[in-house]
Amino acid sequence: MSSKIILGSNQFGKAEVRVVKITRDTDRHQIEDLNVTSQLRGDFEAAHLEGDNSHVVPTDTQKNTVYAFAREGIGSPEAFLLRLGEHFTSSFSWVDGGRWEAESYSWNRIQAHGSEHDHSFVRNGQEVRTAVLVRDGAAEHLISGLKDLTVLKSTQSGFVGYPKDKYTTLAETTDRILATDVSARWRYKAGTDFTSFDFNKNYDDVKSLLLEGFTENYSHALQQTLFDMGTKVLEAHPEIDEIKFSMPNKHHFLVDLSPFGLDNPNEVFFAADRPYGLIEATVLREDAVPAENAWTGIAGFC
Amino acid sequence: MSSKIILGSNQFGKAEVRVVKITRDTDRHQIEDLNVTSQLRGDFEAAHLEGDNSHVVPTDTQKNTVYAFAREGIGSPEAFLLRLGEHFTSSFSWVDGGRWEAESYSWNRIQAHGSEHDHSFVRNGQEVRTAVLVRDGAAEHLISGLKDLTVLKSTQSGFVGYPKDKYTTLAETTDRILATDVSARWRYKAGTDFTSFDFNKNYDDVKSLLLEGFTENYSHALQQTLFDMGTKVLEAHPEIDEIKFSMPNKHHFLVDLSPFGLDNPNEVFFAADRPYGLIEATVLREDAVPAENAWTGIAGFC
Amino acid sequence: MSSKIILGSNQFGKAEVRVVKITRDTDRHQIEDLNVTSQLRGDFEAAHLEGDNSHVVPTDTQKNTVYAFAREGIGSPEAFLLRLGEHFTSSFSWVDGGRWEAESYSWNRIQAHGSEHDHSFVRNGQEVRTAVLVRDGAAEHLISGLKDLTVLKSTQSGFVGYPKDKYTTLAETTDRILATDVSARWRYKAGTDFTSFDFNKNYDDVKSLLLEGFTENYSHALQQTLFDMGTKVLEAHPEIDEIKFSMPNKHHFLVDLSPFGLDNPNEVFFAADRPYGLIEATVLREDAVPAENAWTGIAGFC
Amino acid sequence: MSSKIILGSNQFGKAEVRVVKITRDTDRHQIEDLNVTSQLRGDFEAAHLEGDNSHVVPTDTQKNTVYAFAREGIGSPEAFLLRLGEHFTSSFSWVDGGRWEAESYSWNRIQAHGSEHDHSFVRNGQEVRTAVLVRDGAAEHLISGLKDLTVLKSTQSGFVGYPKDKYTTLAETTDRILATDVSARWRYKAGTDFTSFDFNKNYDDVKSLLLEGFTENYSHALQQTLFDMGTKVLEAHPEIDEIKFSMPNKHHFLVDLSPFGLDNPNEVFFAADRPYGLIEATVLREDAVPAENAWTGIAGFC
Repeated sequence: MSSKIILGSNQFGKAEVRVVKITRDTDRHQIEDLNVTSQLRGDFEAAHLEGDNSHVVPTDTQKNTVYAFAREGIGSPEAFLLRLGEHFTSSFSWVDGGRWEAESYSWNRIQAHGSEHDHSFVRNGQEVRTAVLVRDGAAEHLISGLKDLTVLKSTQSGFVGYPKDKYTTLAETTDRILATDVSARWRYKAGTDFTSFDFNKNYDDVKSLLLEGFTENYSHALQQTLFDMGTKVLEAHPEIDEIKFSMPNKHHFLVDLSPFGLDNPNEVFFAADRPYGLIEATVLREDAVPAENAWTGIAGFC
Repeated sequence: MSSKIILGSNQFGKAEVRVVKITRDTDRHQIEDLNVTSQLRGDFEAAHLEGDNSHVVPTDTQKNTVYAFAREGIGSPEAFLLRLGEHFTSSFSWVDGGRWEAESYSWNRIQAHGSEHDHSFVRNGQEVRTAVLVRDGAAEHLISGLKDLTVLKSTQSGFVGYPKDKYTTLAETTDRILATDVSARWRYKAGTDFTSFDFNKNYDDVKSLLLEGFTENYSHALQQTLFDMGTKVLEAHPEIDEIKFSMPNKHHFLVDLSPFGLDNPNEVFFAADRPYGLIEATVLREDAVPAENAWTGIAGFC
Repeated sequence: MSSKIILGSNQFGKAEVRVVKITRDTDRHQIEDLNVTSQLRGDFEAAHLEGDNSHVVPTDTQKNTVYAFAREGIGSPEAFLLRLGEHFTSSFSWVDGGRWEAESYSWNRIQAHGSEHDHSFVRNGQEVRTAVLVRDGAAEHLISGLKDLTVLKSTQSGFVGYPKDKYTTLAETTDRILATDVSARWRYKAGTDFTSFDFNKNYDDVKSLLLEGFTENYSHALQQTLFDMGTKVLEAHPEIDEIKFSMPNKHHFLVDLSPFGLDNPNEVFFAADRPYGLIEATVLREDAVPAENAWTGIAGFC
Repeated sequence: MSSKIILGSNQFGKAEVRVVKITRDTDRHQIEDLNVTSQLRGDFEAAHLEGDNSHVVPTDTQKNTVYAFAREGIGSPEAFLLRLGEHFTSSFSWVDGGRWEAESYSWNRIQAHGSEHDHSFVRNGQEVRTAVLVRDGAAEHLISGLKDLTVLKSTQSGFVGYPKDKYTTLAETTDRILATDVSARWRYKAGTDFTSFDFNKNYDDVKSLLLEGFTENYSHALQQTLFDMGTKVLEAHPEIDEIKFSMPNKHHFLVDLSPFGLDNPNEVFFAADRPYGLIEATVLREDAVPAENAWTGIAGFC
């Protein structure tokens, strides 16, 4: 055999800890709803090679820590992950890094009898908010994001001027539906002081910019629209160094109604499932310090 | 063998036809987004017993019909199903009934530069609207509904006074989270004239009543809350004869933080996946004409 | 308002209780893996109308009962449900019926060093076995079944001779792929004595007959193949009175390769997701006693 | 603003092209069932910045190419991806790399009348086979794999000797169920000549080794079992340089039956959904040439 077999990169923890936090200092309750994953990195070689668990902080303990920390409040997914990351890397000498991830789900107050109810909520369902913290020794990378934000333009989109080869059958069009599920992740400049940063306001603002950017220009290709969306975010948010997108081109095919004696002037579409186009790209500042390892393990981003 | 083997009840058609209709008479486009299933009933014995397809209206033809009918507009899921049902039962002498079903997905206009955009939309995602039409010879049953409407009350819910047997370990509580995914289906009085009925307004109103009903009273059991919700709908809507619910009791377990020296006054919860309670019930008018066959094939309703 | 509002049919319980039973009397362990739902029927009006829970056997108690009963062994999904049904209807005077359902998942022993391992298993994954017991006063209905059994014939299937109308564009074919996910549910004759009935052997045999029936004849339509499959089961199993099927026609479209200068003699197919054909039918004995209420709440069967 | 905004890493293509290939040279048909994704890398800046599509090889063309290439046979997922990668990088001067991915689904012949049928198949369902090819200029990385291979040991697993802190409540155990869904990906040595390599045989052998490795030793931690499994593969397969695993620890909690007067000697378990442990690690040769960029975009591997 060519050489010794060794342990490479590794991490472990508890995934998908579902924590719901109710803040009830007054009759007007607040709800926070997260799905948290904690994974530790460091010296875990003995566990892998010898079954010696003396360094293996139990995944059950990591789960307990999530719940205990929630008792003091969550605030934002990002702030919560920063507290978890700091705790684990400072509590165990052999833990020098890790990856902490959260999804969060938004709830609206129920409208009842003309006003928003104090303690009754309906889940919003529009998109899922995401956050990832990677700590690697002294380096710390924080990435906010969203996924499953489904948007559609019913006009002002086309696709022409592409190369044709022997396998090309697609017809050009200057008016089509453009639809996608936006997955976007934005990474903050390394070294940003988050002490008084308002992650929730930041999130709402970036989401609004992404939506607005989707509407603004005629789309010659989903690639162009993606780049416009990313540029808007970076221009408005100096604290963000790069933003990555993974966006399916969800095909809406115009149905041929001519066999039935009907025209179809871009009115009736078949919304297809698979296959779909898949556009992935990064928009970043020219002077951004690369952080490739921050993105490891995030599916579907290049 | 005990007796002759015969064909019993049967139906066939095309399921999950995804149709998106853009209405673009003006620059302010409208979008309708449906998932339609068409199934025919009638004399199809020869196909089953002899492979004789002379009565088998192809499922592909049923799909084409959905798209062709969408060319003239959808209006509402219910109105669209009524047109499909009338077409199929009047077009083929051996088709004397059928079942037509639709899900519909709601879209909001994207807010951009301070106003709602003309042709850019974001999917709402809060719940799925449903409709089922069953025709059985002269009888016609129409059922509207919704599903996946996730609601939660952070207080004003308890569970006490239940019977205890040797398998009971549950502790009583007077303050817990009550959470569920509302699935509700309401059946219109047979013989209702739908010619000028506004199904969309009806839907919005019933949804609002269900949400409001969820908030109103202290909940001694999810059963009681369910009955309150149904009663509100029937009291306000004389055209509805019965409403059925299937609602999971989505357990939110209070986390025991005492091992960590922390109290937990109903603030930190573990949102569990499985198992879950499952409450199903019908609320109806005493003089409603039963229509059991209208409900056949709808999952999870009793 | 037209009349008094009342409570109609209702049931409640615990859904999806995941129980894994290891039998370890010897070193050669056995595994049983079930997902059990228990729902009770009876007099629960006070809970719905007044929030009086004195009849509400907690769903948590129902869950505990499932685990306690598993301690004595499971044996088969059907036998386990019969024990649960008997327990609940005989333990509480106001419970006069209910519905108990199970899915079960099959595991194979892992092959290691040339033999099947004693206590290491790999999940089979081919299909899900199902069982439903409905008790309604003295009446008892038991239904076995399976779902997600995906089968495909690469030839010996066609579709011709169907009616054409103005919406028909489908071309006839005498050689196509026929593919479906078999969902089948078979109901035992009411009054069958199950004391020494081997449900596991029965299941294996019915599954084999369904698979064999799928292969046997040229298929003029999925309807015909369905009827053949059901007939085989009823002919071999006098204890079964009826069998219902719900089978999608999973379209595999021949790809047109002619633009690329290639032929395609039924070799390269696009496997589509939606829409799909949907064929549902019942095969039964002419003298079977109908039991419509046994089927309530099972999705996708007519 | 801190600096110019530019385009970073990007790729685009068609995702989830479902291709079923029937080989029917004789009456004994063969079936291959793949889900293929093609994504191109290269100079696509003009599309993103100016909406100039002159370099954008349409995703529709990429799909067509998949089907056209399937006409000449698939052979194995890996061999098919290698052909696709070679085609795209040699056909367009501005395409200098890409990522091609496939899932494949295994089918068994149906047993009918005592033998395996010629043209009727049942989907196996046990696991999904995966393959990823990354080309980056001259560099080429090929990764085979599998996912969703669910395995369970009913004994010979424990977890003791771990560190305890203030958040630790877990009790030690020397006999528990160990269950996981194996996701494994193995990367071939760069520069391997695949001309006559039998990927299907390789796959079957690696899968067997993984299963066997899972059974062999007492498991002190899932980490140890993972390392054992990886070592077995590397020892037997010199052509593989590293193997990565992502394995949930699927908790099976022993149910406390003592309130019901019952013991529970590791017989009755609750199979939990979330949260779950999550163990990820790489086993590799000490002299393996790192290829971090080969792994970009694969979810859940570190």
